Amino acid sequence: MKNVAVIGYGVVGSGTVELFEKNRESINQKVGRDCDIKYIVDLRDFPGDPFEDRMVKDFNVVLEDSEIEVVAEVIGGIEPAFTFTKKALESGKSVVTSNKALVAAKGAELLKIAHEHNVNYLFEASVGGGIPIIRPINKCLAGNTIEQISGILNGTTNFILTKMIREQMDFDAALKMAQELGYAEADPTADVEGEDACRKICILGSLAYGKHIYPEDVHCSGITRITLDDVAYAENAGYAIKLIGSVKAVEDGKVTAIVCPRLVSKSNLLATVDGVYNAISVTGDGVGDVLFYGQGAGKLPTASAVVGDIIDCLKHPDRSIMISWEDNTDKSYVVKYKTVENAMYVRIQADNADQLKPAISEMFGKLTYIERAGRPDNELAFITPTMVENVIDEKLAELSHSAEIKSKIRLL
Amino acid sequence: MKNVAVIGYGVVGSGTVELFEKNRESINQKVGRDCDIKYIVDLRDFPGDPFEDRMVKDFNVVLEDSEIEVVAEVIGGIEPAFTFTKKALESGKSVVTSNKALVAAKGAELLKIAHEHNVNYLFEASVGGGIPIIRPINKCLAGNTIEQISGILNGTTNFILTKMIREQMDFDAALKMAQELGYAEADPTADVEGEDACRKICILGSLAYGKHIYPEDVHCSGITRITLDDVAYAENAGYAIKLIGSVKAVEDGKVTAIVCPRLVSKSNLLATVDGVYNAISVTGDGVGDVLFYGQGAGKLPTASAVVGDIIDCLKHPDRSIMISWEDNTDKSYVVKYKTVENAMYVRIQADNADQLKPAISEMFGKLTYIERAGRPDNELAFITPTMVENVIDEKLAELSHSAEIKSKIRLL
Repeated sequence: MKNVAVIGYGVVGSGTVELFEKNRESINQKVGRDCDIKYIVDLRDFPGDPFEDRMVKDFNVVLEDSEIEVVAEVIGGIEPAFTFTKKALESGKSVVTSNKALVAAKGAELLKIAHEHNVNYLFEASVGGGIPIIRPINKCLAGNTIEQISGILNGTTNFILTKMIREQMDFDAALKMAQELGYAEADPTADVEGEDACRKICILGSLAYGKHIYPEDVHCSGITRITLDDVAYAENAGYAIKLIGSVKAVEDGKVTAIVCPRLVSKSNLLATVDGVYNAISVTGDGVGDVLFYGQGAGKLPTASAVVGDIIDCLKHPDRSIMISWEDNTDKSYVVKYKTVENAMYVRIQADNADQLKPAISEMFGKLTYIERAGRPDNELAFITPTMVENVIDEKLAELSHSAEIKSKIRLL
Repeated sequence: MKNVAVIGYGVVGSGTVELFEKNRESINQKVGRDCDIKYIVDLRDFPGDPFEDRMVKDFNVVLEDSEIEVVAEVIGGIEPAFTFTKKALESGKSVVTSNKALVAAKGAELLKIAHEHNVNYLFEASVGGGIPIIRPINKCLAGNTIEQISGILNGTTNFILTKMIREQMDFDAALKMAQELGYAEADPTADVEGEDACRKICILGSLAYGKHIYPEDVHCSGITRITLDDVAYAENAGYAIKLIGSVKAVEDGKVTAIVCPRLVSKSNLLATVDGVYNAISVTGDGVGDVLFYGQGAGKLPTASAVVGDIIDCLKHPDRSIMISWEDNTDKSYVVKYKTVENAMYVRIQADNADQLKPAISEMFGKLTYIERAGRPDNELAFITPTMVENVIDEKLAELSHSAEIKSKIRLL
């Protein structure tokens, strides 16, 4: 049966078709019946493409074809993906996707529609590319209360930070290299400002805690202001700087969620994750810490997850697999990040900075000064004790009368 | 409904009951109905145990109770576990297990029985303790052709090797410490000789390649003969010695599978996995390399996987989830390990060993001599090129006329 349609023939879409066709024989064995891709929907022409005969421009062809059971939406972005997805689910077709923007914005709503129509909305590819993470959290770790999830969720920024750490390349040079290698887009904002990672941690938090976490409720800061000086101080003190998305259960059924650069101790496996690789650490009350590692983006790795979801839908043709979370209108569900405790790396500039040490030590109590080779007289760096961030800010405001606060990076 | 029974109240059994009861409210939400543990079957008495009222000694009580939907078999070993499992499946109850010995010996048979009775036989806990690995391979990576799986599958041996590498403790002292800490049993044979890891790689290989791989067809060597000298040479050359179970597709639809110590390059994440932790690397033609890491044993981590499987069965009360592989009677399916290519670390002893270098170099072609601090005159260590193991053996047999072969360890 030709029962699959792929919507969007870009990088992930073409990878999905390629991988499905390559492994079709074993896929059909796993599904237990003959399945294939019938349509590839894209507004563009692909003359000479080996699958040209399956190309259509009108999504309605898919909608109106009752043979189609599964639609792989790999367009990205909110529209027209949202409308297509909704219509497909409402017409009794399962939808699988790599579209993190859409899942983060509309996941609860689309999951509800899927259940109402006894079909599936699956999105293993939306977080961590090919790394299995949605099913493991939803199924394998279902017996746990999830204590926290934190991860390197964006390969572009991890590539840039790796170049800064390993080769002392500055941010602009590393970004340029990432763009030349095709790891970063011409407009790199969504990656370097942490927006992409934010969508992913929202999806993981929604899944783990059962309530939709919206990106606009999550504080997000990127890596554009990290300097090689910060990298050097971190390195010297046994840390690597990584862009980390994290979500954690706190009191009263609420959560904290934040995306920001962090100093990660080198004894933590996350600190050893280099280049475009992603890794996600999950802590459960039964399992302890588990970590998932792999290529978080790219044509075939992402296609791997899309095709895995297609197979799962084809294996459950008349059944809604219970992935679900509630919608959430409570703006206090994600607690304000300034009320959360963190230890903080701080770098300041002041004339004869060392003379400020007694005042700083009195301000923060027990803190740790850290060094870098060639630290100038007018610079000082330290790591605060773990304190509520508002309190750290108050103290730094006081310190700013006698010094310029150059960097503030949270510890993991 | 009291629809779950736990068979065996040892470490994993008591952890399963503890975790299930602790998270019962959220488990019931996930299942979508009220579920609980009705029976705990064990021949022993547990006076004063908080769940004493659920204890029964006779497994038939479970079998004959139609309310029981899921049986968690956490006895371990082949019998009576096999008989209990078979009877439970035949009477229409799903079975979940942490019993790697049973799955490795009888997996194909029990999966067949489960399908015939439209129930499930799930075993996420049988490999890697709480680490999600069975479902990820079976579902998330289903779109891939699996190229290889290799992993640190036994926490006891990894603890011992870590002590040898990090603290220069010798094997006997490290084993004694592992026993004192409860990581190794009084009779450590199954761990240190690699048998436990062997069962696990058989399960992963059966799942990934669709045909049962029996432990007796897999060459298995343990870590008892590794010396601190070997550790030092490896360290010096940029490797860590790890006990690795691996399975790989080769030509003609056959596989190679082996458990043995290996020199693992420190650039490989597996080399950084220390202590009782496990990690499993999977390579697929779509996803590339992914790695799964966590606690591979222990009461609650293993219970985490058992409870996850219980939940999955409770969510699919009238459905056999299609995990399956064929039985296999072809003794040539796992190719002879001596016909497989490896690079090999070799340590020899001979008077004035350095004088043998020209002869050895001629024998092997381009090889690498490696050093350790304080290498005595009568010792030499080298890494061979990648060659069929039979050929390496022939050359070493020749070399053994002029030197004693003290160690042979494959590279990963």
